[in-house]
Amino acid sequence: MPPELPRVVRTLAWRGDALELLDQRRLPLEAPPLLCRSVEDVREAIRTLAVRGAPAIGVAAGYGLAIAARESSAADWPGLERDLETAAGRLRSSRPTAVNLGWALDRVLAAARAVAPGGPKEVRAAVLAEAEAIDADDRARCEAIGRAGLDLVPDGARVLTHCNAGALATAGIGTALAPVYAAHAAGREVAVLADETRPLLQGARITAWELAESGVPVTVICDGMAGYAMQRGKIDLVLVGADRIAANGDFANKIGTYAVAVLAREHGLPFYVAAPLSTFDANAPDGAAIPIEERDADEVRASRGVPFAPPDADVWNPAFDVTPARFVTAFVTDAGVLRPPFGESIAAALGA
Amino acid sequence: MPPELPRVVRTLAWRGDALELLDQRRLPLEAPPLLCRSVEDVREAIRTLAVRGAPAIGVAAGYGLAIAARESSAADWPGLERDLETAAGRLRSSRPTAVNLGWALDRVLAAARAVAPGGPKEVRAAVLAEAEAIDADDRARCEAIGRAGLDLVPDGARVLTHCNAGALATAGIGTALAPVYAAHAAGREVAVLADETRPLLQGARITAWELAESGVPVTVICDGMAGYAMQRGKIDLVLVGADRIAANGDFANKIGTYAVAVLAREHGLPFYVAAPLSTFDANAPDGAAIPIEERDADEVRASRGVPFAPPDADVWNPAFDVTPARFVTAFVTDAGVLRPPFGESIAAALGA
Repeated sequence: MPPELPRVVRTLAWRGDALELLDQRRLPLEAPPLLCRSVEDVREAIRTLAVRGAPAIGVAAGYGLAIAARESSAADWPGLERDLETAAGRLRSSRPTAVNLGWALDRVLAAARAVAPGGPKEVRAAVLAEAEAIDADDRARCEAIGRAGLDLVPDGARVLTHCNAGALATAGIGTALAPVYAAHAAGREVAVLADETRPLLQGARITAWELAESGVPVTVICDGMAGYAMQRGKIDLVLVGADRIAANGDFANKIGTYAVAVLAREHGLPFYVAAPLSTFDANAPDGAAIPIEERDADEVRASRGVPFAPPDADVWNPAFDVTPARFVTAFVTDAGVLRPPFGESIAAALGA
Repeated sequence: MPPELPRVVRTLAWRGDALELLDQRRLPLEAPPLLCRSVEDVREAIRTLAVRGAPAIGVAAGYGLAIAARESSAADWPGLERDLETAAGRLRSSRPTAVNLGWALDRVLAAARAVAPGGPKEVRAAVLAEAEAIDADDRARCEAIGRAGLDLVPDGARVLTHCNAGALATAGIGTALAPVYAAHAAGREVAVLADETRPLLQGARITAWELAESGVPVTVICDGMAGYAMQRGKIDLVLVGADRIAANGDFANKIGTYAVAVLAREHGLPFYVAAPLSTFDANAPDGAAIPIEERDADEVRASRGVPFAPPDADVWNPAFDVTPARFVTAFVTDAGVLRPPFGESIAAALGA
């Protein structure tokens, strides 16, 4: 009998007539199930960050349209189309800047239009099928990253990660954490050191919770401790996600990633970036072409109502940083592991 | 007419019959004056961190004994000695691990004993004089560090610092911040980037407050942003304090210092460590001989009652780290600037 596969947190699941989410609003304390039975339920879940992470939001929005198709009492396509478009508008405005959100809604609406001549029943089936396809695609991409990265995470590995690029940001087993979950599922001992990731603490609040919940040993450290952990021999490799990767391999990720990359090279540790091919931007030749968002000073001045700095303190709060390609050992993608020279390996993967 | 000297926050001052402190318990919001009229007032101020920083605690304790000598109604030396020793015991137990505290108390008691044959009036005068000498010595050491470091902080300099080694930790203008205040007082434009310094946020709470209060422009960043700030050309030099410096120049300081040192070298930035000679430990041949305190996990898991990580999360919380001497450009001391090779320059300074 094969050993039981370790459980990984499941961010969302379709329950036949409703979308079940893990409600992330009470993290780091708990993430109880939340059943969304209406379009407004889904909209509210996205708007209030009960579900977050670009891939997970896209999947949730797709199911939101499946619920809209069920809710609609329209007997013909024009009526159903109107209801679907109204629902798509409501969902689209829930998080205006999330790229995957609009992309998923457009994909489901296109699937509906493609079968419109077949009538409402066929449209309803196509809408649900497309939402399920988006869900399955996302899970498959995560699994593929996990398979590609499995052999980079040997038995006994101690992995440093930054921010949350885990299951709770996707419909599947995450991106940066996918190789960790894959190694864990393969019976390897693997332990994670999680940077807390100021200012928004995604590492402490989310990564620590989901790994512990999935049975992967995890230890939280403050961001300033990663270098000392490396010096003391507590880390074997680094695995992070990416928000955008330029054609030459420079990449943007949560602020603090660049410092981790410099420290990893100082200590001769492999530094891996895990992301689906959709994260590569062939139109950005290098990191200088990636715009970096600066966010509100209050995120740094206080955290969850606790004042950290004088209320009128000047603050610099870049949300992301850019790490030059020369610090990257390899990119772990759903199309395999890409190694230097990255200009060539990335072009080959995107051209495939 | 010479330009008016810029004001620097004054942590404590003797007011003739009482000790006035800036009450640091409400930082980062404010530090109002707090008048300590009794030994118990001083003890409570030290115990509850109204005054903190090893040098400042030592000075406060010295004045605590001056208050005890005034409070005592003893008409002879044995009675006064008993009262002084009782007070010293009360003050000594307020922060059991602060080295300067016990050292200052012993120094004042010795000064009292030296003049005991002269009677209570002479003892009372000697106790106050010794407390004032400890205060003046600390201010002089800070001033000397400021003078030594002045030329390392040119006009227009943008200085990164970590934690708080400023005026609020001493009776004077601080250690790491002394060259900044000296440059500011000399009319140079100088701006500080302050790492917030998780977990206890001394940078965001204390450094940001005291610099702003003293008219030095200061910007708070999260610890993970320092590397990116260097990459973006926002920093010219780094100035940090030290808790202990080994004979070869390896030094211990607040956790996160080591990462800053590695990043500074990656970007070719000068990395200065400012500390009085009393911080050098000739008995520690190198950093391996410096013990590192690991503190309670709850400091990382939560801040002032707000949960940052799951309440049962594993945490690694070293309070300090050790930076190898090869990352240090120079030590800025009250006996001048020490440059490599540090084995020689440190031995020469300590032998002098």
